[in-house]
Amino acid sequence: MSRLVMKFGGTSVADLERIKNVARHVQREINAGHQVAVVVSAMSGKTNELVGWCREASPFHDAREYDAVVASGEQVTAGLLAMTLQNMGVDARSWLGWQIPILTDGAHGVARITDIDGTRLIERLEINQVAVIAGFQGIGPDNRISTLGRGGSDTSAVAIAAAVNADRCDIYTDVDGVYTTDPRMVPRARRMDRVAFEEMLEMASLGAKVLQVRSVEMAMVHNVPMFVRSSFDDPDSIDSSPGATPPGTLICDEEALMEQQLVTGIAYSKDEAKITLRRVADRPGVAAAIFLPLSEGNVIVDMIVQNISEDGKTTDITFTVPQGDYARARKVIDEQRESGEIICELVSGSEDVVKVSVIGIGMRSHAGVAAQAFSSLAEKGINIQLITTSEIKISILIDAAYTELAVRSLHSLYGLDKPQD
Amino acid sequence: MSRLVMKFGGTSVADLERIKNVARHVQREINAGHQVAVVVSAMSGKTNELVGWCREASPFHDAREYDAVVASGEQVTAGLLAMTLQNMGVDARSWLGWQIPILTDGAHGVARITDIDGTRLIERLEINQVAVIAGFQGIGPDNRISTLGRGGSDTSAVAIAAAVNADRCDIYTDVDGVYTTDPRMVPRARRMDRVAFEEMLEMASLGAKVLQVRSVEMAMVHNVPMFVRSSFDDPDSIDSSPGATPPGTLICDEEALMEQQLVTGIAYSKDEAKITLRRVADRPGVAAAIFLPLSEGNVIVDMIVQNISEDGKTTDITFTVPQGDYARARKVIDEQRESGEIICELVSGSEDVVKVSVIGIGMRSHAGVAAQAFSSLAEKGINIQLITTSEIKISILIDAAYTELAVRSLHSLYGLDKPQD
Repeated sequence: MSRLVMKFGGTSVADLERIKNVARHVQREINAGHQVAVVVSAMSGKTNELVGWCREASPFHDAREYDAVVASGEQVTAGLLAMTLQNMGVDARSWLGWQIPILTDGAHGVARITDIDGTRLIERLEINQVAVIAGFQGIGPDNRISTLGRGGSDTSAVAIAAAVNADRCDIYTDVDGVYTTDPRMVPRARRMDRVAFEEMLEMASLGAKVLQVRSVEMAMVHNVPMFVRSSFDDPDSIDSSPGATPPGTLICDEEALMEQQLVTGIAYSKDEAKITLRRVADRPGVAAAIFLPLSEGNVIVDMIVQNISEDGKTTDITFTVPQGDYARARKVIDEQRESGEIICELVSGSEDVVKVSVIGIGMRSHAGVAAQAFSSLAEKGINIQLITTSEIKISILIDAAYTELAVRSLHSLYGLDKPQD
Repeated sequence: MSRLVMKFGGTSVADLERIKNVARHVQREINAGHQVAVVVSAMSGKTNELVGWCREASPFHDAREYDAVVASGEQVTAGLLAMTLQNMGVDARSWLGWQIPILTDGAHGVARITDIDGTRLIERLEINQVAVIAGFQGIGPDNRISTLGRGGSDTSAVAIAAAVNADRCDIYTDVDGVYTTDPRMVPRARRMDRVAFEEMLEMASLGAKVLQVRSVEMAMVHNVPMFVRSSFDDPDSIDSSPGATPPGTLICDEEALMEQQLVTGIAYSKDEAKITLRRVADRPGVAAAIFLPLSEGNVIVDMIVQNISEDGKTTDITFTVPQGDYARARKVIDEQRESGEIICELVSGSEDVVKVSVIGIGMRSHAGVAAQAFSSLAEKGINIQLITTSEIKISILIDAAYTELAVRSLHSLYGLDKPQD
């Protein structure tokens, strides 16, 4: 017997028919002898409706009122799922953020969970009552409802799993796991059986949008294994007995991985634009003169590369920003040039770029992974515009036209096309 | 300066446009120097949608889950109105039942308010912050959301008014006050300026469905003056300065009435069916043998009349029930006859009846009001089938075809057609 947290997103609870399907998934786990807490999102479309009303009420709305309005969506789903379970003969009750309580900081709309007392939940779980928990919400120090920001239900689920000492946190979604790359681009993409937290972090932030980055961070800190699986599978066809391995991807501690592959996956992000400053006068504080005003202008900067140029007195600086921030970023840089804060010869940029990333914990202990990537792309005639690396990731900026070619080449290069043993 | 509670129902907050109109009403009172707490219902249609989902989830649903789901409607309106007020430059915050808290008993779905601590609300009112309160909800002894039953927002408003010591509780609705009778039936019906709590109680229960009966009872107990007025009047055209008398009906303590009229209003109810038992053996326990099984069968009995018949050994008993309960009531009586619990010669009944009532505190100290009614109806050739009286009300059951004639005659008889001074 184990203790599970099951999390269902908006599309999985979009209407009463789907909520019944969710209830059958829960019943299956209960029948297999597990203790279950379920975390639910709002019915799909509801949050957007509520957010739309808030905008209509006031363009600059009080985040505390926004939270009171928007959190109602999860409240409704939690109550409905509890009723549906009861109707199937499964003991269940709903829990709202303030009832558990899920304590957060006071940053309404983007709150962070500070503490969850799992005592009362555990009492109920131990008598086999299903705890149906409204995701995405908590209660702030001001005794008012707080929300965790969009997609926060994943984070709720992991935090609850940590608080009740769950053996696993199952994230039910509209895909059946995490793939080695985007299956729409590479038909031979494979579902990974297991992936390390660190790898998942790099993939999530790169656009493999299966999971909220924050939830993976939290799972890593508390060492809660997460399991990504499909909510659309027929609940009755799944074996939930101890030791069974249902289809899905387990995200877990590095040490729990059977065997480390060199490279786990290939990710890409199309939402990139690059800006290059040529022959910037290389003096102390120059980077600050560029990136401080950008940050104050709420421009999110991703890749940053600085090279010494030939003359030794000037440098070239290139960075990337989301495409939506491109015009704003150019404007900030132009203003800095006009005011003399930045001295440089030329500013150029392009929105026609894509970032391709190779991710794998294995590359940490294995030189040559990067070199293989570069030569593989060179063979295909793909020009590399920018390179950044971390311990477990290599990111390469290329011309957008070559995206598919690059992703497919790298996917083959590291053996990800082959069926897993 | 005074302290006001303003209550707005579902049609008054049906969309963002109407919520803005409500905000303008609130702003008007604030500008006139009053302290304001607002109680709101769910946007019209929302509660029905939520209730529909509960039924779909489970035909026999847990009332605690039902409450969690349904209370979300008022939560949304409260947040949206607070935002809208802030956007107009009016300081405001929303309050949910559990935040104040509004304590109720544990009868989920039909809870009764047991206590409200007004301290924190008063603190905010005194710094001129508008308290926007979700109506219809509270928190039960189990720390879970409770709801007061349909229409409970009126009750919330009066209870809040009592808790914060408000000078008046304004009920904004889709009519501009309480009328002497149904204006659709009698075009010369007049809006009453003032009416006593007791009179309003008799009218509300008789179908002049402007206010929840429970809210009037509570207002009477706590002596909170209620003021029924229209939410569709243009907020800017209303004078809210102290001493001004905006259009509407004040429901207040008898002693606050300027001058007592003999009769205040004429009400009628079409939802009536009568059942007569002839020549019932008149022995102890006979009434119990009839009405106990009816009550166990959830039949609501309204008028009851018993007369001694000629022979002195038997009696005739007539009573009325709502039309929806008629068939069930007949069945219960038939079963009692078959089992020998009731011995009588004949059971007859009719659904083609209407109850007309004359209401007025003044009739308490003035004999002859009833006699006037009876002779007026007789003059018009209207046969009286049944009469019951209370201290401030005379109810008469007549053939449904004569409803309009009877109501119009009685309305003229007591001078209600004449313009008030």
